[in-house]
Amino acid sequence: MHSTLKSSTEVIIRFSEVDSLTIVWHGHYIKYFEDAREKFGRDYGLGYLDVYNYGFVTPIVKVECDFKKPLKYGEKAIVEAIYVNTPAAKIHFRFKVYNAANMELVATGSSTQVFLTRENFELYLTIPDFYAAWKKKVGIKE
Amino acid sequence: MHSTLKSSTEVIIRFSEVDSLTIVWHGHYIKYFEDAREKFGRDYGLGYLDVYNYGFVTPIVKVECDFKKPLKYGEKAIVEAIYVNTPAAKIHFRFKVYNAANMELVATGSSTQVFLTRENFELYLTIPDFYAAWKKKVGIKE
Amino acid sequence: MHSTLKSSTEVIIRFSEVDSLTIVWHGHYIKYFEDAREKFGRDYGLGYLDVYNYGFVTPIVKVECDFKKPLKYGEKAIVEAIYVNTPAAKIHFRFKVYNAANMELVATGSSTQVFLTRENFELYLTIPDFYAAWKKKVGIKE
Amino acid sequence: MHSTLKSSTEVIIRFSEVDSLTIVWHGHYIKYFEDAREKFGRDYGLGYLDVYNYGFVTPIVKVECDFKKPLKYGEKAIVEAIYVNTPAAKIHFRFKVYNAANMELVATGSSTQVFLTRENFELYLTIPDFYAAWKKKVGIKE
Repeated sequence: MHSTLKSSTEVIIRFSEVDSLTIVWHGHYIKYFEDAREKFGRDYGLGYLDVYNYGFVTPIVKVECDFKKPLKYGEKAIVEAIYVNTPAAKIHFRFKVYNAANMELVATGSSTQVFLTRENFELYLTIPDFYAAWKKKVGIKE
Repeated sequence: MHSTLKSSTEVIIRFSEVDSLTIVWHGHYIKYFEDAREKFGRDYGLGYLDVYNYGFVTPIVKVECDFKKPLKYGEKAIVEAIYVNTPAAKIHFRFKVYNAANMELVATGSSTQVFLTRENFELYLTIPDFYAAWKKKVGIKE
Repeated sequence: MHSTLKSSTEVIIRFSEVDSLTIVWHGHYIKYFEDAREKFGRDYGLGYLDVYNYGFVTPIVKVECDFKKPLKYGEKAIVEAIYVNTPAAKIHFRFKVYNAANMELVATGSSTQVFLTRENFELYLTIPDFYAAWKKKVGIKE
Repeated sequence: MHSTLKSSTEVIIRFSEVDSLTIVWHGHYIKYFEDAREKFGRDYGLGYLDVYNYGFVTPIVKVECDFKKPLKYGEKAIVEAIYVNTPAAKIHFRFKVYNAANMELVATGSSTQVFLTRENFELYLTIPDFYAAWKKKVGIKE
């Protein structure tokens, strides 16, 4: 049995990311999610280039974000990408964003990716062999 | 009775918005949604500055996007913001993004905004008077 | 003899582009410059895809921007790309950004591009044939 | 006599920052410059909020960037902000961007900031007292 697979990364809120209300513009969280998802990819060997080398690309088909508290310029956020296993030929993550000062949860979200063949962008409806092998390697049972 | 309230805007896909797969990076759609929501604000008098002048700000508390087809560099997209009425003290929009070349639906999404007082960012749980008046003016019954 | 070659495009300042000082964050002007340069490309047949089809890519090797007046949320800017002829194997533009409300000059800048072969990104030190032909077609003498 | 004042920060190139040529889109370097300038501000007590607390804001009036080598997705860059002293009422930085893998210089640039009063954005033509004191504290002679 595997424990939860997750990675986290730290983001310092940039001046350019803060809007006239002095809080992070909501669209930037999508980038923070990607920062954490990429960190997961590096930590567990499921990065863009890993997948690419196996002959696939994995575009996002769904993303969502719930905003609970604002983040302000200069604050530090901890962004967590939590891998959610699914039997489908998809990669699913949940995200949690915390204010590092008090570890208050400031946003949550999720993303879903599918597998396309690298060469002609054909949707792959079954789990690619490399992905099944990756799941096994990281300790996911089914 | 009112017909559907909606606005649409045209976006030409920028070189800087396209990733190494030669398609729009998914996070940019949040900006396209905002372009259409802002267009709606200008068309119907519910823009950021209108709301601000009534003493409120309306931050996004939820956004989601489903990606169906890619958009490529140089293509034109039509982005539609469709107002969805709700009895709650919220502003809710659905979005549809079309490829202008064939009007194929390439993405859908939604956003939800709440009302905070402009001065101290207190959440307003009842519908502000100005918003009730706005609804009446644009022909929304309840 | 040719008259000045230029194109202009209109930009409505987005909420997401404005910082906590309620003015456009300076880095966004680079995007506005590109909007105008791309408009020039479409107007005169020197766009990214035109150049690509001739076997070249034209990365930016230098960009600069001088900021004179702020632009605020909701304001309209007119961005002008002015082609500057040079005997070198380069594409050079100057940019002027005006506040559409009063046509006050709010920023100026420039960009320089070089020619790389599309296939292996080799720097091309002489003027490509297609570019010499383009110059002739648009009426540039030398 | 003071030695050179500088700070550096590390940037991992994001998927969203890379264009269809698989290299960083040039406009993103302005953000990298800001990352390093902000790091300098934190290291030396000349950050946005420090300056703000003294009653000033320091908008960018000029920025430039020279691009020498591309950066690719996943690569690490070291971005250096080097303080350049000037007798004028300005803050001037030079920037150097290195590819961390081989410390090859991939871009250089500069930025210039002026002092505006925080309240009404009036340009300050003489060196503010706090800035003179800051210079003295960090060991700058004149």
